[in-house]
This record gives sequence, C-alpha cells and structure tokens, in this order.
Amino acid sequence: MQAPFSTLSTFRDLLAEAPAPDAAALAGARDRNGQLTKPPGALGRLEDLAIWYAGWRGNPRPVLENPQVIVFAGNHGVCAQGVSAFPPEVTVQMVANFQHGGAAINQLSKAIGAKMDVYALDLDTPTADFTIAPAMTETECVAALQTGWAAVDPEADLLVTGEMGIGNTTSAAAVAAAVLGGRAEDWTGRGTGVDDAGLARKTEVVARGLARHATDDPLAALRCLGGRELAAMAGAIAAARHHRIPVILDGFICCAAAATLERSVAGALDHALAGHLSAEGAHGRLLAALGKEPLLNLGLRLGEGSGAALAVNVLKGAIACHSGMATFAEAGVSGG
Amino acid sequence: MQAPFSTLSTFRDLLAEAPAPDAAALAGARDRNGQLTKPPGALGRLEDLAIWYAGWRGNPRPVLENPQVIVFAGNHGVCAQGVSAFPPEVTVQMVANFQHGGAAINQLSKAIGAKMDVYALDLDTPTADFTIAPAMTETECVAALQTGWAAVDPEADLLVTGEMGIGNTTSAAAVAAAVLGGRAEDWTGRGTGVDDAGLARKTEVVARGLARHATDDPLAALRCLGGRELAAMAGAIAAARHHRIPVILDGFICCAAAATLERSVAGALDHALAGHLSAEGAHGRLLAALGKEPLLNLGLRLGEGSGAALAVNVLKGAIACHSGMATFAEAGVSGG
Repeated sequence: MQAPFSTLSTFRDLLAEAPAPDAAALAGARDRNGQLTKPPGALGRLEDLAIWYAGWRGNPRPVLENPQVIVFAGNHGVCAQGVSAFPPEVTVQMVANFQHGGAAINQLSKAIGAKMDVYALDLDTPTADFTIAPAMTETECVAALQTGWAAVDPEADLLVTGEMGIGNTTSAAAVAAAVLGGRAEDWTGRGTGVDDAGLARKTEVVARGLARHATDDPLAALRCLGGRELAAMAGAIAAARHHRIPVILDGFICCAAAATLERSVAGALDHALAGHLSAEGAHGRLLAALGKEPLLNLGLRLGEGSGAALAVNVLKGAIACHSGMATFAEAGVSGG
Repeated sequence: MQAPFSTLSTFRDLLAEAPAPDAAALAGARDRNGQLTKPPGALGRLEDLAIWYAGWRGNPRPVLENPQVIVFAGNHGVCAQGVSAFPPEVTVQMVANFQHGGAAINQLSKAIGAKMDVYALDLDTPTADFTIAPAMTETECVAALQTGWAAVDPEADLLVTGEMGIGNTTSAAAVAAAVLGGRAEDWTGRGTGVDDAGLARKTEVVARGLARHATDDPLAALRCLGGRELAAMAGAIAAARHHRIPVILDGFICCAAAATLERSVAGALDHALAGHLSAEGAHGRLLAALGKEPLLNLGLRLGEGSGAALAVNVLKGAIACHSGMATFAEAGVSGG
C-alpha cells in the first residue's frame, strides 16, 4: 500500500492521527474473559494479551491466523570505524540466506505459520558514516520509511519486524541515546560479539555520533544516526497502527527504531508488545523506557525478528484460549 | 504400555535404572549448533534446548512433531476440611469440559498440534482425608502410578502432564513440604483463589498432614499426602524417561509430583524441563529445589498442563532452528 506521506514532518503528522483500540471490543472481550471455565485471573498475562488484541482487531472473540514477518536489511557506513565482529558483506550473504530459507527467522516464521518477506535496502550504497555526516538525507530516510510502510500487508492480523545489518547495533545505540537520553556507554553493547577493545571503540564511535548530531527531534535522530532498516521498521510499525494490526517488537535494534515513534508521539506504540528481552546489554533499559514488559526472556540476541517471532505463539495461545474456551454456562461448570 | 512394576519399591528400582541421554547425539548436536548461520550463542537458551532434546531423542538433528498432553483428574478427601474456593463436583464437571474440548488445555493442545488424553481417576472415590489417614493405600497409589505409566504413548516425542482436582494444591503443598523440607506455610498458597481465612485454614491442614505422616521416603509422602492425579503424573514422567521422551513440567502440582521422583533417585528429572513459573506462591521455591529454570513466566496458575503446553512452542522453535537452519558453509556466509 502506497505510503501517505512524503516528508518526515508529514510522517509525524500521521503518527499523531493514529487510531485507538475499539472500546466495544475491549469491553466485550473483558466480559467474555470473566465467563470462561477457569478461576478468575488463572491464565495470568494471557488474559490481558487476548483482551488487548481484541481491542486492536475490533473483535471481542478474535482470531490470529495471518501473521506477517518482514525482515529489512541495510548496510552502514559506520562499519568503516571497525564496530562489528563481522565484515559488511555478511549483510548481503544473510539476505541470500533469508531468501533461500536457511536462517533462524525462516524456521521461526514457518513455526508460527507466518508469511515472511525480505527487503534488501540499497545494500550496495551503505548509509553515510555518522561520525562524519548524517547517515541519511531526508529523501533517503523518507524512502526507507515508505518502503517499510508499503511492505505491510493490510490483510495481516499481526506484524513482526526484523532486521539484518552488520553494524546496526552501533546505529541503534546512537539512536536510543539520542532519543531516550543517557551516555553512549549506557546504550552500547557487544552486538554479534565484539571483544573489550571492540566495545570501547564502538562506544567511542557512538559518542562521536551523538556529539555531531545533537537533536531533540526523534525522527532527525533516526535520519542522522540510524539506518535504512531501522527507518523501514519504524515505517512498518506505523503502518500497522494505521491498519489496526498489532505488532510484536523484537530486540534492541527494532526497539530503538520503535522508540523514535513513541518519542515523536506518545502512545504511538500502544499497538505493540515487547516480544522478548534480548541479551544485548541495553535492551532492558530500552524496554523500561518504553514501558514494555517482555513476553520472553531466553537470552536471544540474534535480531532478524527471531525473538518476536518466537513470542507470536504465546499470543496465539492466549487468543486460542480466549476465543475457544467454553463459558461456565456452556460447560455446566459450577462457580462461574 | 503395561507398567513394569507392582509395588512402590519396584517402581523406585525402575527409576534407578533410567536411561541417560545419548552422548553421540549430544556431541553431534553441539557440533551442528556451532556451524549454523548465526553469531555464536545468539539464539541463547534455544541452543541449549535443542541440544538437550537431541540427546534424549538420540538424534543430532531431531524433529518434534508428535507431542502428547495427558490430563489426570482426581478427587481429594481433604476437601472436607474446606481448603478450596470451589466445590469438589467441579472436578468431574471440568473432566466433561476437557472431553468436550472447552477447557484452556484443549485450546493449547490444539495450538501445539498435540494429542490430548484425559484420565478421570476414580472421581467417585476421593482419596482419604490426609489429616485423618493416609490419602492412599499402597495398592491405590501403585494403581495410579501404573495408570500414568500406561498412559504414555511410546511413539510420542514430547510429554506434557497436567492435572485437575479440586483440593490438589493442598495435597501438593503437603507433598512438597514432606519431600523437600520446610514448614507448611512455606508451601501453601491460594490455589484457585482462597481468601486469607481460607489460606490460614489450608496451611493448618497441611501442617496437620505433615505431623501425621512424617516420613523420609518421597514415595511414601506421595502415597500418604498426595492424590491419584499426582501419582499418575509421577508414573507418566517416569515412563517418559523409560522411553527417552522429554517432558515439560507444568506448575506447582505437577512439580510437587515430579519432586517425589527426583528425591527418590537424583537425576530422575534430567529429561524434564520446567515449562513456566506459576503464580502459585511456592512454585518458584519448588523449581529452585529441583534446579530447574522455567521457560516462561506469564503469571499462569491454572494447572491442566496449560503452562507446559504453552512452553512446547518454545522448544519447537528451538528445534526448528537447530534442525532447519543452513550452516555457514551451506549458505556461503562469511565468519563461520
């Protein structure tokens, strides 16, 4: 679907017009939850998840059967600063792996019955090295946001956005610091596995980027410090809200991109859950800043949307219980 | 499959002869894990899960496609002491709900593609009130263990055991205290939702049971303080080990039953994972005593096998990644 914006400013305006959940569906789902054959509250967080999903889908007894996983890949000029344990050509190699079905996210998408789409975003033209210049021009950043927006299937009933991009934990750390505050060392982690010297170099690179591109505009931070795959994820998450499609957020990079939306317009992520707590050091801090409690905590730090995809089955289970269980009256069980 | 024991003593002997994981499959799975297209360790706990599963199934590249869920239901004489928020007739009503597909565990079993079996264990003849007499005779306890053993499908590749039984958090608290030590108040919780007065009464009932049936034999504790569904779960978990079928443990009641195996023969639960941390107060203490780290923590406290069933998809995801991903060599990705 064509993206209905052409500048960062009109994108921000769209965020401000985002729809709210359906109040009648929320009320209907709460009522139904109270009648199901279980002690009150005994399904714990699953009950909240199902009601939340019902509100966004506008259906008090919803189904989840058409999830979409989108993986966006980008390359980063800041790799020239030696911030990653892997060479930049791994990005394009991993895109081929996604296309041939060999990556973790392929297996996890299949396991949740999701359609999976892969977008390689100008891999031959990395973003600019943000220690020297803004990572993207406004035109480039808007194009990436538009690609993300248009990638969302309006018929999907759940969205997971994932990413691949050697160097992108560096970009994400810089974006998170610019948008949420704090020092470079608060947000910089080991990514795919840099050693102590690599971590020190990476932290110093993030600090230089922050010093060069000081801004209190979250979308300017996305443009100057981020990358195409971060902008595309932000665009996709915004499009999902537009279509009332709930989102499960993945790890550090996805959440850094998402934070630019929430800090642009408070509540812009109300349709999004945190799928998991990543082992990338600052992800917990990022989730706390967003007020999101992760569904899973299994030590993943892969990206690709892997943690979010794994969490889809928790939401599916919640919805299956909510929409499939008998009520006390239907089952003839005492105590309802 | 006919249970190969006829006394508690011969059941204990069987536990002592339990098979170990396959060392060659473990080594092969570790080797494969190191070659997959991801940074080392980036799938976190999923990597350990897949290797563990490979060891038990004797296959370095295993599949998980035939899980079995068994729900055992029993009634408890100790209900006469007013320990539950629900009347005992709810047990048989919920069994009908299981049989008609209306309970949470039906929806969750369907969501994981599991065969689900329900065993109603002499619901018309509750166990004896353990404040007055042993809950079961040896004959009754062995019969329940045998039913559990025989219920396991030797062709299953994963087992979840669940339970239903009004009053059974009281039995489970008493069993846990007898087997793991500590006071009645350390192990007694609100179950389906008793109020403060109910909790005080329940704690006092557990204390009386412990005083009456002091023993250092875990299987004697199961017989004197437990219930048929606890014994059946213990029998099923032991049978799964015999068939090298991995198990995902559910909440407080399942784990109290399982603890009688582990404390009878150390390592008897090496083929079992903790599916989740229940909101039933003492479950965390129970898992710590068993040395098990739960896969999920979502505030469930329903029983039925619900938390374990929900966790099956985490294990499925782990195995899908392990067995389905391309290696660095296969995918032509640098850095392997």
